[in-house]
Amino acid sequence: MEKIHIFDTTLRDGEQVPGCKLNQKQKLKVAKALDDLGVDVIEAGFPISSPGDFVSVKAIADQTKNAIVCGLSRSVEKDIDCAAEALKTAVRPRIHTGIGTSDTHIKYKFNSNREAILERAVAAVKYAKRYVEDVEFYAEDAGRTDNAYLARVCEAVIKAGATVVNLPDTTGYCLPTEYGEKIKYLYENVSGIQNAILATHCHNDLGLATANSIAGIQNGARQIECTINGIGERAGNTALEEVVMAMRTRGDYYHFDTKINSKRLVPTSRLVSAVTGLEVQRNKAIVGRNAFAHEAGIHQDGILKERTTYEIMHPEDVGFASTDLVMGKHSGRAALADRAKTLGFNLTGEQLQRVFEDFKTLADRKKEIFDGDIVALVENERLGQIDQEWTLTGFALQLEHLKTPKIALTLSHSGVEESVEVEDGIGPVDVAFLAIKKITGVDFTCKSYRVQSSSLGHDANGETNIRVVHKGELYRGRAVSMDCVEGAIKAILDAVNRIIAAEKKGPDILGEQVVNQP
Amino acid sequence: MEKIHIFDTTLRDGEQVPGCKLNQKQKLKVAKALDDLGVDVIEAGFPISSPGDFVSVKAIADQTKNAIVCGLSRSVEKDIDCAAEALKTAVRPRIHTGIGTSDTHIKYKFNSNREAILERAVAAVKYAKRYVEDVEFYAEDAGRTDNAYLARVCEAVIKAGATVVNLPDTTGYCLPTEYGEKIKYLYENVSGIQNAILATHCHNDLGLATANSIAGIQNGARQIECTINGIGERAGNTALEEVVMAMRTRGDYYHFDTKINSKRLVPTSRLVSAVTGLEVQRNKAIVGRNAFAHEAGIHQDGILKERTTYEIMHPEDVGFASTDLVMGKHSGRAALADRAKTLGFNLTGEQLQRVFEDFKTLADRKKEIFDGDIVALVENERLGQIDQEWTLTGFALQLEHLKTPKIALTLSHSGVEESVEVEDGIGPVDVAFLAIKKITGVDFTCKSYRVQSSSLGHDANGETNIRVVHKGELYRGRAVSMDCVEGAIKAILDAVNRIIAAEKKGPDILGEQVVNQP
Repeated sequence: MEKIHIFDTTLRDGEQVPGCKLNQKQKLKVAKALDDLGVDVIEAGFPISSPGDFVSVKAIADQTKNAIVCGLSRSVEKDIDCAAEALKTAVRPRIHTGIGTSDTHIKYKFNSNREAILERAVAAVKYAKRYVEDVEFYAEDAGRTDNAYLARVCEAVIKAGATVVNLPDTTGYCLPTEYGEKIKYLYENVSGIQNAILATHCHNDLGLATANSIAGIQNGARQIECTINGIGERAGNTALEEVVMAMRTRGDYYHFDTKINSKRLVPTSRLVSAVTGLEVQRNKAIVGRNAFAHEAGIHQDGILKERTTYEIMHPEDVGFASTDLVMGKHSGRAALADRAKTLGFNLTGEQLQRVFEDFKTLADRKKEIFDGDIVALVENERLGQIDQEWTLTGFALQLEHLKTPKIALTLSHSGVEESVEVEDGIGPVDVAFLAIKKITGVDFTCKSYRVQSSSLGHDANGETNIRVVHKGELYRGRAVSMDCVEGAIKAILDAVNRIIAAEKKGPDILGEQVVNQP
Repeated sequence: MEKIHIFDTTLRDGEQVPGCKLNQKQKLKVAKALDDLGVDVIEAGFPISSPGDFVSVKAIADQTKNAIVCGLSRSVEKDIDCAAEALKTAVRPRIHTGIGTSDTHIKYKFNSNREAILERAVAAVKYAKRYVEDVEFYAEDAGRTDNAYLARVCEAVIKAGATVVNLPDTTGYCLPTEYGEKIKYLYENVSGIQNAILATHCHNDLGLATANSIAGIQNGARQIECTINGIGERAGNTALEEVVMAMRTRGDYYHFDTKINSKRLVPTSRLVSAVTGLEVQRNKAIVGRNAFAHEAGIHQDGILKERTTYEIMHPEDVGFASTDLVMGKHSGRAALADRAKTLGFNLTGEQLQRVFEDFKTLADRKKEIFDGDIVALVENERLGQIDQEWTLTGFALQLEHLKTPKIALTLSHSGVEESVEVEDGIGPVDVAFLAIKKITGVDFTCKSYRVQSSSLGHDANGETNIRVVHKGELYRGRAVSMDCVEGAIKAILDAVNRIIAAEKKGPDILGEQVVNQP
């Protein structure tokens, strides 16, 4: 089996989804999970894009033990300086720099020409090489770049010292045979190609990202850039779990493999879904709740006779627990740690203690505790909530069919309690919004509201996710509760606290408009 | 451009998702939407699998004006008799029959041998030909079937009169190059291949269904079997919207096209999502809410300079409305009809009247009405709710933080009101479940609960979906309300009414275990 490098960009390209920005604590948790998953490279962020991104990349560089840590930059010296500074403490740092190479990008984005862009590309690689040995170059919109010119760019940047050349299909335009032919062309026409690794970076606009990435590999590329759950702008990036399991399940045909620990795919998928609020659809390949029919409990005649009749992978291989074991108030700490381990979480020390306390509190209220509840507890602990400026003290709600709801709400702020009574609006969520706005004085518009139960039973925990707009910016809020009204209040407060925290920090150096690379 | 036939199996293979069974009214609405979308073939169901399926296929055959209507059968005479009977009134009927051809299926599913299976295949096609001219044969698990044997099967069934030969990758095992080579092998080795159309039928277990289908087309297949939103068992089927838009967007490369009206893709996607309760994830290619970045309101520098910098399709081309126009209580019927049309719904006559009445009621309670609200209203009207045995008369809820909730609930049954008071459980949803169980006497376990707002604002309509288990069977319930507690009550009642309706009807002739074809 030939080894394929997995370059995870969940924290850089994946995070570019409106309203899904992560805070530093959340990024560190995801980076740790990615390192445990066994990715070769973690693209941690785009350091110059904001002070927050800089600090996060630096913290991930400090923390990461195994993977290469990579920071993005444009072909601009100050970007590269900033990335180098953020990566200073990394055991294995990589600077990822580059520029748009398609005629559309050269003309409309840079108002430039092919020769000038080629020079900037070479200069950027040389400049980055002053700082680190490992420099990756991206040719943005390589998917729509003329092959002959692309070959010239590749040859020049490899000569300048690029160790990896990334060929992004930025707009998700390419088709598998076409993308494969492009990689093949480069292998046949770039002198010095053996001195660098070619990388695929595909987007899923036409539903072909997984196939394009693998077509690249079949034609000589040796690195796949991808994200957990395929998250990212528009239709997202290549899904890590799909390319990894396609190569592993069909090793007989491809003869490629990665060093990913596939049993950690589902836990990592759940963590990313929880911190970003981006739900995975039920029939998502590999990590969707329905991806393995057995979960649904249908007794298929074929399956009963012989498992391979309808099954090409085992759910346990990607980290689904094989049974939904029930726990309760008499279950001890060791049993909890053991079950959590089966579900993909290694709990020790203080973290185990905190989750165990939450577990006991839950067990007092809920007779049967399912795997979904345990996952919710662990994720809640792992979420890294931001500092809570406002917290819930208490509420009472009166609701009558077709009448105006009434709420009495008390919140705390730096230890001081403030209460209001509001009789207005339509339902419990509406009146909760109105009451919270009134107490906190923060104004915002609700963009979306979603509740999803996380386990079985009508007393199940529910995860509430809301997205609100404040001064043109999207913020999200999240809470887990067995009471959907309490969940709504806490999720709204989470969003309010994020708004307050963002306003304290001040705006980013660069607006969102230039983060769109590559 | 060469024409590719689109064979939609949303109502047969797509519907095979636990808890997502549709009732007849819903199936008729989906079939109508598919005919309007311009699919070439509607696979309406598997007539022998249940009396409900038989009646639905018959009703779709009666109703459909343009598309071929197809019914599934095994290679069993009574299946074929039943399919022929259900399709009797179709303008263009097709019987779809077949059998497993991989060694795994032959050995474990049929305990048979290759020669005997070949004979059964030929006999089934000949038998179906007695009823209809258009007979499609499926070679189940063709993806894992030995090519030489598969060629023999194809040759024999074409000789027996099959007009279409379907080559399902039943387990989602194949890779694009491999599946393409399989089709190519058949074209080169089956004598008489020009007398039939070869069809692709792919599953998405490795995330490759779209690519496999297109690889099949590139190698000579001329029909793609697919479902709206890619729904189906496990990781689902090929997504119709992806193959259609990949071929259309890249006509320059493929030179293939379909007769799909792409502007109806989003409305049809929404309808299927509403009736099945299967939510489409935000970054789903083509039809996801984030599939086009513009929707999120990010001002990308590149996009502002030149749209093609980052965009390969226009959102309007697939049926996204270009602006979120606000309507209100002064908007008239014509304005509503006009807006609904932009959103993909042709409302006329009684249907327009009913939606307009709901619109006025909503406008009395909600100041600004967004596109999402209109879609919710139309979908609610189109949903084809089953007969409501139990309906909500009224409720009052008292809820206090960390205390036991209390509900007074009144339901009606055949005009008679019944009330209970319940003070128990944890949150409002829990106590609503307990109260409904108590009044109706129907017992069930909650499997999942989900609320999703359907437009902007904290007074937005929310769509509640629940799934419950009753005597080992999954049932779902759905409701739309601006009050999440009212929504929960109505969704639970919808599920209870479905349980009662199912028990009146009696069990299916065949259990779910044999519905798993091909």
